[in-house]
This record gives sequence, structure tokens and C-alpha cells, in this order.
Amino acid sequence: MEINMNKIYIVGMGPGFESMMTKQAIDALEASDVIVGYTVYIKLLGEKFQTKELLTTPMRQEKERCHLCFKKALEGKTVSLVCSGDAGIYGLASLMYEIGQEYDNVELSVIPGITAANSGAAVLGAPLNHDFCTISLSDLLTPWDKIEKRLVAAAEGDFVIALYNPSSHKRKDYLMRACDILLRAIEPDRACGYVENIGREGTSYTVCTLGELRSAQVNMFTTVFIGNEGTQIIDGMLVTRRGYQIE
Amino acid sequence: MEINMNKIYIVGMGPGFESMMTKQAIDALEASDVIVGYTVYIKLLGEKFQTKELLTTPMRQEKERCHLCFKKALEGKTVSLVCSGDAGIYGLASLMYEIGQEYDNVELSVIPGITAANSGAAVLGAPLNHDFCTISLSDLLTPWDKIEKRLVAAAEGDFVIALYNPSSHKRKDYLMRACDILLRAIEPDRACGYVENIGREGTSYTVCTLGELRSAQVNMFTTVFIGNEGTQIIDGMLVTRRGYQIE
Repeated sequence: MEINMNKIYIVGMGPGFESMMTKQAIDALEASDVIVGYTVYIKLLGEKFQTKELLTTPMRQEKERCHLCFKKALEGKTVSLVCSGDAGIYGLASLMYEIGQEYDNVELSVIPGITAANSGAAVLGAPLNHDFCTISLSDLLTPWDKIEKRLVAAAEGDFVIALYNPSSHKRKDYLMRACDILLRAIEPDRACGYVENIGREGTSYTVCTLGELRSAQVNMFTTVFIGNEGTQIIDGMLVTRRGYQIE
Repeated sequence: MEINMNKIYIVGMGPGFESMMTKQAIDALEASDVIVGYTVYIKLLGEKFQTKELLTTPMRQEKERCHLCFKKALEGKTVSLVCSGDAGIYGLASLMYEIGQEYDNVELSVIPGITAANSGAAVLGAPLNHDFCTISLSDLLTPWDKIEKRLVAAAEGDFVIALYNPSSHKRKDYLMRACDILLRAIEPDRACGYVENIGREGTSYTVCTLGELRSAQVNMFTTVFIGNEGTQIIDGMLVTRRGYQIE
């Protein structure tokens, strides 16, 4: 990996454990003078990174966090911005490109990571083994009617669905609302599942039906999976057939 | 990572370079006596794995490859089955669970990897930074009318779309057919892109419009991205806004 002046790596940390980061991601952090991130993720980093200049900003200060990266890069520092999962999937990669238009002579490089759809699927078995979509139930940046439209389209297309942000303090009933929309098109015994604390201490998973999912207790660290027509439960795992003609 | 008798790891290798594998994936391969895979991927493995018992089966012999894993596991060997990208996304994870019903006393563990949607997105910038779906254009295991239905639903839901298997020797016009379906609902100047040889020598990417994508030269190693309403081209990169209310 070449190290340049004014370089910012936008690094996907994966779900938590360093063992679920790629070597490329670890190399980027090691090559960096400054590591910027949300407090929780900075704390997840191993000891060897504690010698770096570590800068944190609280939740909701995403724009400030991005500007901080560019300012540090323009001081000649190599910077890594860390995001959980994959920085390009519900992370800060696109905001960095948008804000980057205000700065010259800074090169951005996105280092992909294991997103919750992938890591959660691995815990549950193989629910994403055919065409799938991801939908975030957070209406912080997306109007609810758009989210609802996507749920309807996902059911219409028989996609497996991975739901991000299924709940928060202010949105306790969002998973129930999403299930009610899906239940208009999908039978209540459709195979589903959810995973908590993926890649961290206390990982747990549950396999259930769509009807049961409606009243499941989830939080902002849960990733939810809704099977397609070909999803079945095999030995307690959620498994989506690769296709329709397996001989 | 605990090592048991009769253990099979189903390992996502990522796009190619070992640096894009997770440490967890490398640990699983190191803990294995036998590594099974499609010839091309076995050859991508580094020298340190060449002392393992390496078993390959040609393309299209996926069921035989799975049975081979179980047979080796029942001999008391620790086995890794390697797939490119993520084994649970268009890989062999679900087939392993299905075939596993024929065998007792074998524990399966899926180790997630970086799939082409993630790694290709990182090359292009940040095209998947909002709700997205993946659709494989291969009709080997899925009837074309189902693929067409999913393309229509994806456009209807304004998902960013990552297309896998956009072409092959026998299906040279499939990307054109997919674009024609999407162009019924999406304007021809929609921002799109595609990436070739992700994570391998000769990685290249192109940013274009949906109209231009229709006649793009792609192959089975290309991953194609179709933006949503909020996707734009910034400094030659494909960037999808996180939301609609960024202040």
C-alpha cells in the first residue's frame, strides 16, 4: 500500500473484533498518523493503535468528523476515518466525497469491511444466498414513506431483506410497522431471523417466523433478516436456496 | 478460534488478494487440514497454505465439492471450503447446509468475506451508501422472468443495484436486456459504474450513465452498479447520498 501526503483512508472496521477486519484495513490504520471516529469504535481498536493521534466526535457530529479528517490531512498527516461494518454501507464514505469537494489535494481511499448483512448472515447460516436487499429503518435521513415504498418493492421482488437500524429509543415500534407492511404481501410463517452484537461479546441469534418477528425485542445493534420464498430453516439455521433448479 | 473434530469452515476469501481476507478467514485456513475449492481460488491462496491437503473440483461440480468436504470431515480432518467473495452471497454456504442434512456430527461455520458489492463499491467511491440490492443476471439457477421481476422491483423501490454475473459466454446480451428493463422506469442519464478484476491485478473501473451502460463491454468478472435517484458523480467517483436531509 503506497503512502502519500494528504491521504485519507475511509476504513470499514467490520462488526467489532479486530479478527474480522481485513489486513488491508489494519495496514491502513498502521500507516496512519491520525485515526478519527465515533468514540465507541475508537475504543474497539486494539492496543497497538493507541499510540496514534486518536480523535473522536460524538454521535450526530458526522459532518464535523469529516471536516476534521480533511483538516488533519492538510497538515500533512495520513488519516484514517473508521466506521463500523463497511464505511460505504450506511457509513461516512459518501459524506466524505461530498465534503471533499471543499478541499484540494486530498486523496480518498475506501477500504471495504464486513458489513452487518454479511456478518449477521454468517451467524444465522446462509440467509443471503440469493438476491437480497438492505433497508435501513432509520428515518433520520430518509422519509418514512420512502422506507415503506422500499419494503413494498422488496416484498414484490421476492428479495431476501436485511434490515439495519430496526429500532432506537425514539423508534421502538419501527420493526413492527415494517413487518405489518411486509405481511400484506408475505405469509406470516415466512422464515426470518435476527442477530445481536455481531462480532462482539454476547453475539446471539434467533430464528423465527415473520409473524413472530413483528413482536421481537430488538435494538439498534440488531440486524434483522427476512427470508424469500426459497428460505428454509435447516437444523435451526436460516438458509436461502441458491436457486430453483438444484438437481 | 476453537478447533473441533468434524469441523467445516465455509470461508469467504474476498475478491482475491489475501490482504482483503479477514484474519478470521486466514485463521480458519491455517487451522484446517484440508482446503477444498474451485481450482482458480485454490491457486489464489498464498504459499503458506500449499502444505495443506488441497482439493479442487472444476466449475459446475458444486455438489461434489460439498460432499467432498463432509467426507473429509468425517475422516476426522478439519476442512475449509473456500469461495470467492462471501461464501454466503452467491456462494456455497446454503448448499452446504442443504447437503449437510445427509451427514451427522459435522459442525458448519460460515466465515464472512468481502463480497464484490462491497469491494467494487469501494473502488468506485461510495455507490452503496444507501439502501441497495444485489441481483445476479445468471439464469443458470434462476428463471429469467424472476430476474426481470426483481429488476422491475428494484427500480420501483429506488434501490441502488449491484449486478453480479452481468455476462458470460452464453449470455453476452444479458446486461443490455437488464438495462432495457431498467430504462422503462429510470432516466437514461442515471449515474452508473462498473468494476473489473476487483482485488486482483488489473483492477479497473468506469463511471457512466445507464444509457451508456447498456452497451458496455463486461464479462463474468465485472460487477455493475446502477445508482439511485440520489447518486451523483463527484470527481469521477460514483457517490450515493446517505439521505435526503443532510444540512
